[in-house]
Amino acid sequence: MTRRHRIEPRSGVAFELLKGQALTVIDAEGTQVADLIAFALHDPSEMLSNGRTFDYEETTRLTTGNRLWSGQSNAMLVIERDTVGVHDFLLTPCSKETFRHFYPDKPVHHGCFGNLRNALIPWGIRLNPMHVAFNCFMNVPADATGRLSVDPPVSRPGDSIVLRAEMDLVIGLTACSAYASNGGSFKPIDYEMA
Amino acid sequence: MTRRHRIEPRSGVAFELLKGQALTVIDAEGTQVADLIAFALHDPSEMLSNGRTFDYEETTRLTTGNRLWSGQSNAMLVIERDTVGVHDFLLTPCSKETFRHFYPDKPVHHGCFGNLRNALIPWGIRLNPMHVAFNCFMNVPADATGRLSVDPPVSRPGDSIVLRAEMDLVIGLTACSAYASNGGSFKPIDYEMA
Repeated sequence: MTRRHRIEPRSGVAFELLKGQALTVIDAEGTQVADLIAFALHDPSEMLSNGRTFDYEETTRLTTGNRLWSGQSNAMLVIERDTVGVHDFLLTPCSKETFRHFYPDKPVHHGCFGNLRNALIPWGIRLNPMHVAFNCFMNVPADATGRLSVDPPVSRPGDSIVLRAEMDLVIGLTACSAYASNGGSFKPIDYEMA
Repeated sequence: MTRRHRIEPRSGVAFELLKGQALTVIDAEGTQVADLIAFALHDPSEMLSNGRTFDYEETTRLTTGNRLWSGQSNAMLVIERDTVGVHDFLLTPCSKETFRHFYPDKPVHHGCFGNLRNALIPWGIRLNPMHVAFNCFMNVPADATGRLSVDPPVSRPGDSIVLRAEMDLVIGLTACSAYASNGGSFKPIDYEMA
């Protein structure tokens, strides 16, 4: 039986996902975001790239059938199933600095960036804050002029996305800490590996 | 008198741009793209971030008045003037790998990535291919579903964009080497500093 893991609200984890393994990211309670980053296990200078992915997939709206690429032009993950179809790959993980910028009247949190950075330390990976995560379930519509907004996710309880590894990876994954990305409700994220 | 520099077709340069200095990037002949990257002079781990810029500027369509941000949440450059209004910050610089992907029947070129990487070596900066440049004059429309295309620039001969440095920077700048981004015509790019 596949074991289900839980990422507590406003926290993050990292783990290895080997070539051929599938990761299922589950929005257990609905309307929550999970930031996902990926590094090549055997050379962490190879990492997930939004720019290379947009270039090769020729879209910013990534869903079933799309692949997520590294800067070195290797496919890292392929999206095998997706019950939501709305994810973001434009924005950096929330951090102390984004909390100060967007929520000046609220307590500062180290955010998904701090959670990812800390979770990756055992692999010797030093996360740079310019790195863009694939933000599962994050809802960032753009209007015809390119103007962006951060709206609550459309995901309902139990919605999920399945990503299969195309190479051996180190994955970082969070339950998002920011107010806007999840409608102000901090919730857990579940995941399974098979 | 301000000296005008020329970047020959399919090449690139790097130079320092100090806080308060303005860089004018000029499409001398029209319909050409210039990839621009920026690093903090005193700590090159701080670099231009498309994700942080989209987050803080709340748009993908950057023009006069918008700022370009580092991952560390510092403004690196502000766009002071812009006679075009169409630039791209979604896609990675062209490289050997993108040539093989998009132009399998054409000679492979090391592209803007190779030109930027080589130009930055004297500053000890090691460019990672996942790094997205601010692609001056590059025309990447997105339709309502997020689907992207790479169309010829709308810039005419002499069109320009002026960016003022908000910190001491190392700038990398190219005359683009790819076919699609400039309509198949490789042309120079001019620039001035003041």
